[in-house]
Amino acid sequence: MRIGVLTAGGDCPGLNAVIRSVVHRAVTGHMDEVIGFEDGFVGLLEGRYRPLDLNSVSGILARGGTVLGSARLERDRLREAAAKADALCARYGLDVLIPIGGEGTLTAARMLSDAGMPVVGVPKTIDNDINGTDRTFGFDTAVTVATEAIDRLKTTAESHQRVMVVEVMGRHAGWIALEAGMAGGAHGICVPERPFDPTDLVGMVTERFTRGKKFAVVCVAEGAHPAKDTMDYGVGEIDKFGHERFQGIGTTLARELERRLGKEARPVILGHVQRGGVPTAYDRILATRFGWHAVEAAHKGAFGHMTALHGTRVDMVPLADAVTYLKTVPDDRMNEAESVF
Amino acid sequence: MRIGVLTAGGDCPGLNAVIRSVVHRAVTGHMDEVIGFEDGFVGLLEGRYRPLDLNSVSGILARGGTVLGSARLERDRLREAAAKADALCARYGLDVLIPIGGEGTLTAARMLSDAGMPVVGVPKTIDNDINGTDRTFGFDTAVTVATEAIDRLKTTAESHQRVMVVEVMGRHAGWIALEAGMAGGAHGICVPERPFDPTDLVGMVTERFTRGKKFAVVCVAEGAHPAKDTMDYGVGEIDKFGHERFQGIGTTLARELERRLGKEARPVILGHVQRGGVPTAYDRILATRFGWHAVEAAHKGAFGHMTALHGTRVDMVPLADAVTYLKTVPDDRMNEAESVF
Amino acid sequence: MRIGVLTAGGDCPGLNAVIRSVVHRAVTGHMDEVIGFEDGFVGLLEGRYRPLDLNSVSGILARGGTVLGSARLERDRLREAAAKADALCARYGLDVLIPIGGEGTLTAARMLSDAGMPVVGVPKTIDNDINGTDRTFGFDTAVTVATEAIDRLKTTAESHQRVMVVEVMGRHAGWIALEAGMAGGAHGICVPERPFDPTDLVGMVTERFTRGKKFAVVCVAEGAHPAKDTMDYGVGEIDKFGHERFQGIGTTLARELERRLGKEARPVILGHVQRGGVPTAYDRILATRFGWHAVEAAHKGAFGHMTALHGTRVDMVPLADAVTYLKTVPDDRMNEAESVF
Amino acid sequence: MRIGVLTAGGDCPGLNAVIRSVVHRAVTGHMDEVIGFEDGFVGLLEGRYRPLDLNSVSGILARGGTVLGSARLERDRLREAAAKADALCARYGLDVLIPIGGEGTLTAARMLSDAGMPVVGVPKTIDNDINGTDRTFGFDTAVTVATEAIDRLKTTAESHQRVMVVEVMGRHAGWIALEAGMAGGAHGICVPERPFDPTDLVGMVTERFTRGKKFAVVCVAEGAHPAKDTMDYGVGEIDKFGHERFQGIGTTLARELERRLGKEARPVILGHVQRGGVPTAYDRILATRFGWHAVEAAHKGAFGHMTALHGTRVDMVPLADAVTYLKTVPDDRMNEAESVF
Repeated sequence: MRIGVLTAGGDCPGLNAVIRSVVHRAVTGHMDEVIGFEDGFVGLLEGRYRPLDLNSVSGILARGGTVLGSARLERDRLREAAAKADALCARYGLDVLIPIGGEGTLTAARMLSDAGMPVVGVPKTIDNDINGTDRTFGFDTAVTVATEAIDRLKTTAESHQRVMVVEVMGRHAGWIALEAGMAGGAHGICVPERPFDPTDLVGMVTERFTRGKKFAVVCVAEGAHPAKDTMDYGVGEIDKFGHERFQGIGTTLARELERRLGKEARPVILGHVQRGGVPTAYDRILATRFGWHAVEAAHKGAFGHMTALHGTRVDMVPLADAVTYLKTVPDDRMNEAESVF
Repeated sequence: MRIGVLTAGGDCPGLNAVIRSVVHRAVTGHMDEVIGFEDGFVGLLEGRYRPLDLNSVSGILARGGTVLGSARLERDRLREAAAKADALCARYGLDVLIPIGGEGTLTAARMLSDAGMPVVGVPKTIDNDINGTDRTFGFDTAVTVATEAIDRLKTTAESHQRVMVVEVMGRHAGWIALEAGMAGGAHGICVPERPFDPTDLVGMVTERFTRGKKFAVVCVAEGAHPAKDTMDYGVGEIDKFGHERFQGIGTTLARELERRLGKEARPVILGHVQRGGVPTAYDRILATRFGWHAVEAAHKGAFGHMTALHGTRVDMVPLADAVTYLKTVPDDRMNEAESVF
Repeated sequence: MRIGVLTAGGDCPGLNAVIRSVVHRAVTGHMDEVIGFEDGFVGLLEGRYRPLDLNSVSGILARGGTVLGSARLERDRLREAAAKADALCARYGLDVLIPIGGEGTLTAARMLSDAGMPVVGVPKTIDNDINGTDRTFGFDTAVTVATEAIDRLKTTAESHQRVMVVEVMGRHAGWIALEAGMAGGAHGICVPERPFDPTDLVGMVTERFTRGKKFAVVCVAEGAHPAKDTMDYGVGEIDKFGHERFQGIGTTLARELERRLGKEARPVILGHVQRGGVPTAYDRILATRFGWHAVEAAHKGAFGHMTALHGTRVDMVPLADAVTYLKTVPDDRMNEAESVF
Repeated sequence: MRIGVLTAGGDCPGLNAVIRSVVHRAVTGHMDEVIGFEDGFVGLLEGRYRPLDLNSVSGILARGGTVLGSARLERDRLREAAAKADALCARYGLDVLIPIGGEGTLTAARMLSDAGMPVVGVPKTIDNDINGTDRTFGFDTAVTVATEAIDRLKTTAESHQRVMVVEVMGRHAGWIALEAGMAGGAHGICVPERPFDPTDLVGMVTERFTRGKKFAVVCVAEGAHPAKDTMDYGVGEIDKFGHERFQGIGTTLARELERRLGKEARPVILGHVQRGGVPTAYDRILATRFGWHAVEAAHKGAFGHMTALHGTRVDMVPLADAVTYLKTVPDDRMNEAESVF
C-alpha cells in the first residue's frame, strides 16, 4: 500500500508517536510505502510531502510537537479538497490517508471519506472530548502537567493562607479540570458542563478555614461559567486572528472569591504548557497503539473509521460517531470528585 | 456504618489516595465512622487501629507508601482470622472491612468474606496482573518510572555504542516490561508469558547496527526466561528471609548478548524505584475512584466484591473472579509492541 | 544553647530543609534545645512556638512550604519587637534566634541584632537577588520549573508557528529570566536591569523566521520594562491588599509583538508555580548546609551575620552586607546569554 | 577563526549544550567557522568531521548524549596525534581545538597543547572530580536522578521496614553519594575518600529503629570500601573489554548489613541512568557558559587552558591544574552531611 499521513490542528503530545508507529507498522509489517504531508491538509492540497522511512521517524517517539507540521485549513479549501478527492489520491498514488487530528480534522476526514477517499482517522485532543473512544492521547500529559502545577501551588497557598484559582484548558468539556482537580486534590472543580454558583465555592472555602485549614485550591476549566445571575463576569473580545481574548474565568473568579471572602485569592492560568512537550508514558503507548491499528485497519479496508480505545482494546469506530457530538463530563464523575473536596 | 480499612502487601503508589478517598466519601457522604488497622491484617488480629477522620488523611493524596503501614501475614494466622470473623467484627463494631491489596490480600479477603465477614476489596498491584479489572493503580507510576529510566539510558547507550538490558519488575506477568518497553522505544521486550530466544535478540541488534544505528535497548521483565535450550542461565537461591536471590535475568541476558555479539552489553536493574514514591496523576485518580466506589458498594451491601475499572467505569466484581487466575499479557499486545521495535 | 528558629516572607522551596538541618545539627551535634516560632516574627511577638526535636522534622526535607508557617509583619510591630529585644530573649530563654527569610526578614534580623538580640540569619529568596551570597536556595527550583515550562512551550510554539512570551518571577532582578531563558533556549530575555527595546525583539524574531525557523520564545521577568519611548504599556492598580494588579508585561509585550509582527504572539504567565513545591536536589543541599552553618555560627558567637555561599564554601557575612543593596544581573551575564539566542 | 570541537569519554548531560554554545558564540559573535570531529579524537585522526552552523545545533540544548559521538582513544594513538599536532592543524586549517571531556580527555588535550596545538579545554564529568573548577556540568543531573530515586525508595523502605543500600556512581570521588545522600536524606553515606566501618552503619540503623523509625537508607559510592579488617568483601574480575565486573559494594554491603542486623536490607544499583538523558537547567546553563568562554578564550589566545567555574564567574585555568590530581570530597563536607543523618 501507499499510505499518506498528516497531522492537523493544535499541538498535542503523542503526535510523533503516532507517525512513528504508522511508519514502523507499515514498513516492517506490510512493506508499505509511507509519505507524510506537511502542515496538515495544506500540504495535501499544495503537494508538499516527503517519504517517511524508519530513519525519518527515528528518535521522535518522546518528542513533543509534530515533525510533519500542522496548520488549520479554512472550510472552503477543505471543500475544494473533498471535491477533488479522487484526483488527490491519484496524484499521490494514495491507497489510504491517515489524518491525525481533533474534531475539526475528523470532520474533514469524514468529508473526504464521504467524497470517496479511503481514509482512516486517528483521534487527537488533549481535551479528551472526542466521542467514541474512552480516551485520547495527549490528555494524560495535560492532566499530568496541570496536576504537577497544583501540587506546587498548594504549598504556596498554604504558606500564604490563600485561595488559589487554577485555570486549566477545556473550552467545551471539563475533563482536564476534573482529573487534574482530583489528582491535585483541589477543593473545588468548575467545568463547562455544570454552571457553578460562586456561593458554593465560598461555602466550601469558609468550611475549610473553619476546620483550621489555611488554604484552598479551586480548579476551573477555561470554559466554565457561573450559573445565571450568580455572578457578574466579563465578556471577551475577538481579536483579528479570530481568537477570543478576555479576562478569563480564572482571573474573574479569583476576584469574585476575594471580594466575597475578604481573603487573598490568586489566579494561575496554566495555558499552553499543558499542550506541549514530552508525552507521558501513557500517551506514548496509546498513540503507538493507535498508529498500529490505523495501519491494520487500512489493510482491512476499514475506511471511514477511526481508532478508539475501549477498555484495554483498540477498536475501529465510524468517523461519524466521533464527530456527531462532544464527549462531556457526566454527572457521576463530578459526584465522585466532589466527595473528596 | 463503621468501616475498617487496611493496606496489606508490598508498597504501591496510590495506597494513601485510596485511604483518603474512603475516609472522605464515608465521612462527608454518609456520616460513617472509619477506623484504620495498622500493618494490614496484623493490626486487625492484634487490635492495633486508629480512628480516621478528614484531618487524619489531610495531605496524603500524593504521598507514597501507606500511612497505615503494611505487613505480610502468614497463612496460618489468616486462617485464624477467618475462623473468628464474626468475633472480629463484633470486637471492632465493624459493618464492613475494606482491605486494599494484591492477589494475596484479595485471597485473604475472600476467605474472610466466605467466613461471613462483610468485605469490600480494593485491588492493588504495580504489576497490573489482577484479573477482572482493566488496570490497577500503581502500575502507571511503575511504567512512568521505568520509561524515564529508558529515556535516560538511550543517550548513554548511543554515546557508548552499547546494548542496554533494562530489567523491570514483573515476576509472573510482563505488563511493565511491555508498556515501559513501548513507551521507552525499546528494541526488544521479554516477558514471562513468552519465553524468548536470545538468537532473535541477537538478530534484532545486528539488524539495527547494520542499518547504521549505534545502540539497542532490551526491556526484560524480571520473570522472563529463555525458551528451553536456547541459553544457559543460573538458578537463584532462597535466602533466610524466603526471598529468591539470584543473578537475575537482566544480568544474565546482558552477558549472553555480549558474548554472542562481541559488543558491550550492560544490565540495568531498576528494582524498587518502580514501586515507591509520588503516584502519577493517573494512579491518584484511579485510587481515588476505587476508594469512593468501595464505600458506595459497602452501603449497597455488595460484599465479597472488589472495585474494578472497566473502560471508563468503576464496577464491582466478585473477589472470586480476581483471584482465580493471573491477568497476563495477551499475544496481540506483544504483536503491537514488536512492530515498532 | 536554646535556639529559636522562624521562617518569614513568601514561600520558597528549601525552607523545611533549613529547619530540619538546624534541628539536627543543634540536637545531635550540640545537645541544644530548639524551639520554632509560628508564622514568623508574629509568633515571636505573640508567644506562639513549639519545641522542635528530631521527630518534629522527620520527613520534611523534600516538602515544599514551611512547617512553621510564615506571615508578613508590619514595620511598626517590628520596631516594637526590636524595642523589647532583651525581654523577648529572656521570655523564651533564647541564646540565639535564627530567622530564615528574604530581604525584609534580614532587615528585620539586622534591627533585632542592632537592638542586642543574638541573631544568625539565613537568606532565602527564589529571586536570587540577596547580596553577599553566590546563590540562595529556592532559586534553582524556580529556574527548573520555568525551564520545564519553556521546554513544553517550544513544541507548541513551533507547531503553531507562534511567538511565545513567557513571564517569570523577578520584580527587581532578572535572575530567573536570565537562567530559565538560557536553560530553555529562549531567543530573547528581558530583565529589569536592562530596559528593552521591542524593536530588537522584532528584529530577532524576523531574523529567525527568515532563517526558516517557525517560532520564537521570549522570556521576560515580571519587572522588565521597555526603554523610554519605545512602547506604550499600561500601569497597574493597587488593590485593597496592597498588591499591584495589572495587565503584566508578558501580556502587554505579547500584544505589542503581535501588532508589530503580524504573527500570533501568546503570553504565558507562570506565576506561583515557580515558588512552591518540592525543592530540587541543589536547593535541598544548599538549604541543609545553610542550616548547619547557622548553628555553628551561633556556637561561635558570630551574631549579626548570615550564611552565604562563596564558591563551594559556606561562609558568614554581616547582615549589613546583605541588605544594603540588591544583587542584580550584571552585564556580562546578559552578554553570555544573548550570544546563544 | 576556524574552530574544531570534539567530545570524548563517557556520556554526560550537557555535552550538546556546550557544542551548541560554541557554535553560536563563534558564528554569531565572531564570524568564525566551526567544524565538529566525530567520535572524539578518533575523528580528528581519521579525518571524520563536519561543518557546524546554527542549524546543525538547533534543538540540541536539552538533548542528552552528544551529536558528535564519542569514543575512547588508546594512549598510543594519542601519542601519534601529539606527534603530528602541527600537521593535524594544517590539515584541517584549525586555529584552535576545543575538546570537551573528562580527566583522560584533558590529559590528552594537555599533550596536544604541549606539542604545539592551540587547545582550549572544556571539563566534563558527572563525578565532579576534576580539579580547578567548583563544579562540572553533568554532576547536577546525576545528583538529581539519584535523589529522585532515593525519594522513591524511602516510601518502599518504610512500608517494608527495610534497610535500602543505594549504590551511586563515583569510582574515585564520592561527590554524587555525598550530594544525593544529603538531598535524599540518607541516613548513612559512604564515599571512597573515607573507608567506612560497617559497625557504624549498624549502629546508626539500630539507633533509628530504637527511635521508632521503620527504615533506613544508606547511599554508597561505587568506589567506597570498608576500612581494613572491618568486613569481608569480594574482588572484581576484569572482563575482556577491560571493565571490572564484580558484585559491587552496594550488594555486598546490603548482605553484610542484613547479616548483622537480622533485618532485610536491599541493594539498588542506580547505574547508567545517572549519566544520560535531559540535563537539568543548572547543567544546561553551566555547559552553555563553558562553551561561550571557551570561544572567548580562543580569541584571546588563552591556549593550554580550560574553562572553570569559580563562584559565579567562569575563568580560565591551566590544563595542568586540572589533571594533576583528583578533586575529592573534603572532610568538612562529610561532617556537614553526617550531622543530618
